[in-house]
Amino acid sequence: MTSRYSDLDWLVINTIRTLAIDGVQAANSGHPGLPLGAAPMAYVLWTRFLRFDPADPHWPNRDRFVLSAGHGSMLLYSLLHLTGYDLPLDELRRFRQWGSRTPGHPESQLTPGVEVSTGPLGQGFGNGVGMAMTEAFLAATYNRPGHTLFDHYTYAIVSDGDLMEGVAAEAASLAGHLKLGKLIYLYDDNHISLDGPTDLTFSEEVLLRFAAYGWHTARVADGNNLDAIEAAIRESQAVTERPSLIAVRTIIGYGSPKAGTSKVHGSPLGADGVRATKQALGWDPDAHFFVPDEVHSYMQAARERGAMLRTDWHARLTAYAASYPAEARQLRRSLEGGLPDGWRAALPAFDASGGEVATREASGKTIVALHGTIPWLIGGSADLSESTRTPYTMTHSFQADAYHERVIWFGVREHGMGAVLNGMAAHGGVKPYGGTFLTFSDYMRGAIRLAALSHHPVVYVFTHDSIGLGEDGPTHQPVEQIAALRAIPNLWVIRPADANETVVAWQVALERSAGPTALILSRQKLPVFDRATMADAGGVQYGAYVLREAANGTPRIILMASGSEVALALQVQATLAERGVPARVVSFPCWEAFAQQPEAYRDTVLPPAVRARLSIEAGVAQGWERWVGNHGACVSVETFGASAPYQVLFQQYGFTVEHVVDQALAVIGRTG
Amino acid sequence: MTSRYSDLDWLVINTIRTLAIDGVQAANSGHPGLPLGAAPMAYVLWTRFLRFDPADPHWPNRDRFVLSAGHGSMLLYSLLHLTGYDLPLDELRRFRQWGSRTPGHPESQLTPGVEVSTGPLGQGFGNGVGMAMTEAFLAATYNRPGHTLFDHYTYAIVSDGDLMEGVAAEAASLAGHLKLGKLIYLYDDNHISLDGPTDLTFSEEVLLRFAAYGWHTARVADGNNLDAIEAAIRESQAVTERPSLIAVRTIIGYGSPKAGTSKVHGSPLGADGVRATKQALGWDPDAHFFVPDEVHSYMQAARERGAMLRTDWHARLTAYAASYPAEARQLRRSLEGGLPDGWRAALPAFDASGGEVATREASGKTIVALHGTIPWLIGGSADLSESTRTPYTMTHSFQADAYHERVIWFGVREHGMGAVLNGMAAHGGVKPYGGTFLTFSDYMRGAIRLAALSHHPVVYVFTHDSIGLGEDGPTHQPVEQIAALRAIPNLWVIRPADANETVVAWQVALERSAGPTALILSRQKLPVFDRATMADAGGVQYGAYVLREAANGTPRIILMASGSEVALALQVQATLAERGVPARVVSFPCWEAFAQQPEAYRDTVLPPAVRARLSIEAGVAQGWERWVGNHGACVSVETFGASAPYQVLFQQYGFTVEHVVDQALAVIGRTG
Repeated sequence: MTSRYSDLDWLVINTIRTLAIDGVQAANSGHPGLPLGAAPMAYVLWTRFLRFDPADPHWPNRDRFVLSAGHGSMLLYSLLHLTGYDLPLDELRRFRQWGSRTPGHPESQLTPGVEVSTGPLGQGFGNGVGMAMTEAFLAATYNRPGHTLFDHYTYAIVSDGDLMEGVAAEAASLAGHLKLGKLIYLYDDNHISLDGPTDLTFSEEVLLRFAAYGWHTARVADGNNLDAIEAAIRESQAVTERPSLIAVRTIIGYGSPKAGTSKVHGSPLGADGVRATKQALGWDPDAHFFVPDEVHSYMQAARERGAMLRTDWHARLTAYAASYPAEARQLRRSLEGGLPDGWRAALPAFDASGGEVATREASGKTIVALHGTIPWLIGGSADLSESTRTPYTMTHSFQADAYHERVIWFGVREHGMGAVLNGMAAHGGVKPYGGTFLTFSDYMRGAIRLAALSHHPVVYVFTHDSIGLGEDGPTHQPVEQIAALRAIPNLWVIRPADANETVVAWQVALERSAGPTALILSRQKLPVFDRATMADAGGVQYGAYVLREAANGTPRIILMASGSEVALALQVQATLAERGVPARVVSFPCWEAFAQQPEAYRDTVLPPAVRARLSIEAGVAQGWERWVGNHGACVSVETFGASAPYQVLFQQYGFTVEHVVDQALAVIGRTG
Repeated sequence: MTSRYSDLDWLVINTIRTLAIDGVQAANSGHPGLPLGAAPMAYVLWTRFLRFDPADPHWPNRDRFVLSAGHGSMLLYSLLHLTGYDLPLDELRRFRQWGSRTPGHPESQLTPGVEVSTGPLGQGFGNGVGMAMTEAFLAATYNRPGHTLFDHYTYAIVSDGDLMEGVAAEAASLAGHLKLGKLIYLYDDNHISLDGPTDLTFSEEVLLRFAAYGWHTARVADGNNLDAIEAAIRESQAVTERPSLIAVRTIIGYGSPKAGTSKVHGSPLGADGVRATKQALGWDPDAHFFVPDEVHSYMQAARERGAMLRTDWHARLTAYAASYPAEARQLRRSLEGGLPDGWRAALPAFDASGGEVATREASGKTIVALHGTIPWLIGGSADLSESTRTPYTMTHSFQADAYHERVIWFGVREHGMGAVLNGMAAHGGVKPYGGTFLTFSDYMRGAIRLAALSHHPVVYVFTHDSIGLGEDGPTHQPVEQIAALRAIPNLWVIRPADANETVVAWQVALERSAGPTALILSRQKLPVFDRATMADAGGVQYGAYVLREAANGTPRIILMASGSEVALALQVQATLAERGVPARVVSFPCWEAFAQQPEAYRDTVLPPAVRARLSIEAGVAQGWERWVGNHGACVSVETFGASAPYQVLFQQYGFTVEHVVDQALAVIGRTG
């Protein structure tokens, strides 16, 4: 059979390959193996299928491309450069250097055309699932007869490593369930991982596994057979009700002296290796970062095609807006990452006389209200909707026959959920959230970290936030999780004290665009504070605020607490007042927000002169020292919890008025 | 076909069921659904197959049973009680109460007969794989012709939730690769998860997926068909070169009014529901925690059979010891959790004149030495052996045809590795370790936490411990991970400063029996300190020690650092000395160990009078405030890293002599 591909195509492919190995060699660090082996499939995908416009990397209906095997970043950078993204050759020369836009692994916040930050294996796989879900949602929500605004594909190149990771397994199972037909993954099946041949640890039948998930699968026996790759992708596009995995058998480090071995996975080829590889590819061994003129002019076509596609889409959008102005406005706002006008109007308010309310419950009511006012709010939980109070519905959930719905059943797949949420946020047009027990935030930290690194404004609903969880016991009781989440840069952790603080916490989370927010919520009921006698819950936005000042004089001690322990602090304050000791209660739901306030504000909340300070939080004290200082103390939980009714646990762990009063008096005693 | 089971069998099964629902009802909290549905399969397994001795829960060759679906704990407690473990009926009555041995989810450290702590889904699944691997290793290592010491099975009951979790997927793939024929899992296939019918999110073909992993699979259409369950287990035993998954179709909450719905998954049945269920099961609705006499006497047989099996095994061991005294001694020591006499003799020592050594490198040399002296040390990495310097071998790794080997290829399966290590530690007879990049400790936190909770003495080899990782960039550079690990109760985190501290860190980790230890190691080379001019590296065992006192007078500041930053602290000390400022350098590798020292020792290292203190660690400062106090400061990394050569990064992030000297002088200035 005659190939539909010419020498020019191969010239481009070898340009990609040689740029990649030149980049790695210049950095003397990186992964040359993947680009050499996977360049042909990437080339076919990018030139024959992928709809993108280098001049507008954020054009909403572009196809998404994820390099889940992020270590092959030079493959992506080479493609971005050649297709005309704003990534000059000089950036490729500065691969892995300080201040460059070509970091070791792709970072979406740095480089135009990089859809998501990848490298930690399995994450990109899950991100793509989230993107395809979002496309399905937007198509179901906005497309109208004769007006197709969303119909893009989500493609990825995934590696053995991706497919070994549990996060990818979770996302794959979900994608199969949801029948995401526009999700097409190319599996760089090179039989080699970092340490050696995959058959030393990975002997499963991958395609059979994916068939079991409900995926369409295909195999390309030779990763250099461009026609076969193209045919497999076309075949996958034709399968509209199943995601596709195409295993493309490649030779890692193709063309290099160590091709087919793990030696070429994660180490530069060396100057001699680069020369030998170039010679094997018919390249001038003395040319570095060389792009032949005909390659430049040929790839110009990508820019032109992209511009045309985008222009066409914008024309469609204009026509759409004429027929569906309200929908078009909504779409525009959502794509900007904004919120609807007046979205706060429907937020619930809780009255102190209405009885106690768990903050998970207040959050649940808030979410329901927000679903009503923010049509692009979408989320769910990892099989804990009834517990986390994220919306619960069996009949109106996001399913293959109901892509317009906004309640997602993620299944018991926390890590997959985290990666999917990132993909949804990266896609744009939706505001995603996900919930589980706070303890199981551990399961999804890999994804939370990438949300923080990539500035994804995802909202996490983490409930059952302490030993207050009660009988389920220490396996389910978070102790260290709040501290561990606070340690993540650019993640905001908000632990509201009552129902009204919970509403404000949601506001803060939704208005935050610079990164993710974790809401930390109680299982147990908590008093709703009478704000007539206390400060407004709006103080949550400052991270910490004086909830109730000492009534009986200048405070001799500051009681600072978060979440369920704020009510205890108020009781302690009252008891201390009875004993003639003025104490201030500071509600301290969010360290990150407080740290960002001007020093003047911080000093009004925590006056430096008041050295007697006590933190009260049912978790490890780690880090509270920053706020209580040398002279202060922490009422905390430093060991794992136990299985018992929560009232018993709080007593056993010292969260009683008597014990905390004693601690407060001891601190005052020490500070004189 | 006539059943081989009688009314008496059903009487026991219904005793299990009613004990379970009585326990949940008494606690007014818990999960009645699983025990009602899964009691028949558990009964068949425990009475027809499982080899155990209630009088000696730790008998080494017992079959292992894991209730991976730990929320069904009352099923297990009922079985333990009826078969004669030291778990009186009163403990079942005190289900989920303070101080009981019947917590909400099984905890191995609390309850005899509970092999591992389960509840966080997927973990038990992975633990079982680790147990089966250990059995295979011990059998290959110790069994001799005519002397079979190890030939036990590992069984588990797993749920939909377990099978949705990525950690289980990872472990399953590994188990298939390793052809663990003695691993037999019963899948409680009840089509219901906490939130509702599994078909809302979990529509994959589970058995086909497991076949793809290389498992033998079987299906039992009716979970009340005892003969079919027995036949499926026998069939699975006959498949000796593949692990087995038997899907047993059950009705969740069988017999209860809400059978077959998610309502019966995680909530008590209520008094009326309990009555109705008992009536449906032919039970006296007014009897609570009732064990018929004939059940007691029938189950007595389990005790007798167990005692016989154990006695027989000990006779075998005696015979073995006569023929193979050295092996028997080794086995005994390993089962006690001990180490060989003189194991430290082969530990390497590093000379300051030998050039710089990365601590991962020093760790690697130490592991090689330890593999020589501790025949039961076994471990590996998650496809990063070359990087983490855990032993690397393609030809002598633990494989289906080489179960006697001690280097495991875990694959790119960090969470699976963590769960497997826990299972190995729980099994006993081995000393397990596992390695990956520190950043990816995030992926396995679920398992690390359970190691800490369950007191498993696992050793983690976490390398590439900071921005010092360099070019791979922020996706791979840990920033918050050290703090996040320190937050976990009962996990020791040790970050040695040089090669010799690394050796001591390994000693501390191996001698620790109360829980896991994480070694935090550098990628980059570090100076080997000249101990002739500094304190001995043995100080690591105290957590912190004065590495080099100020030469020029009483210290005006304490520089405390861990890992790669200790060398910087020494340079700063020297520069300060040139400027006439005496400074003390404290190497501070392990907070947890230091916190356990007597106050007198702590005060010698950190004299309260010296208020000027500076911590230097390339990670978030969170928690260092505890040691530096109000007047101190922290040189830290509070944002994500970047992709660049590590020397550039350390400079950009302020880890330079000049910058730290400035910080030190500022602190001194503030404290006067």
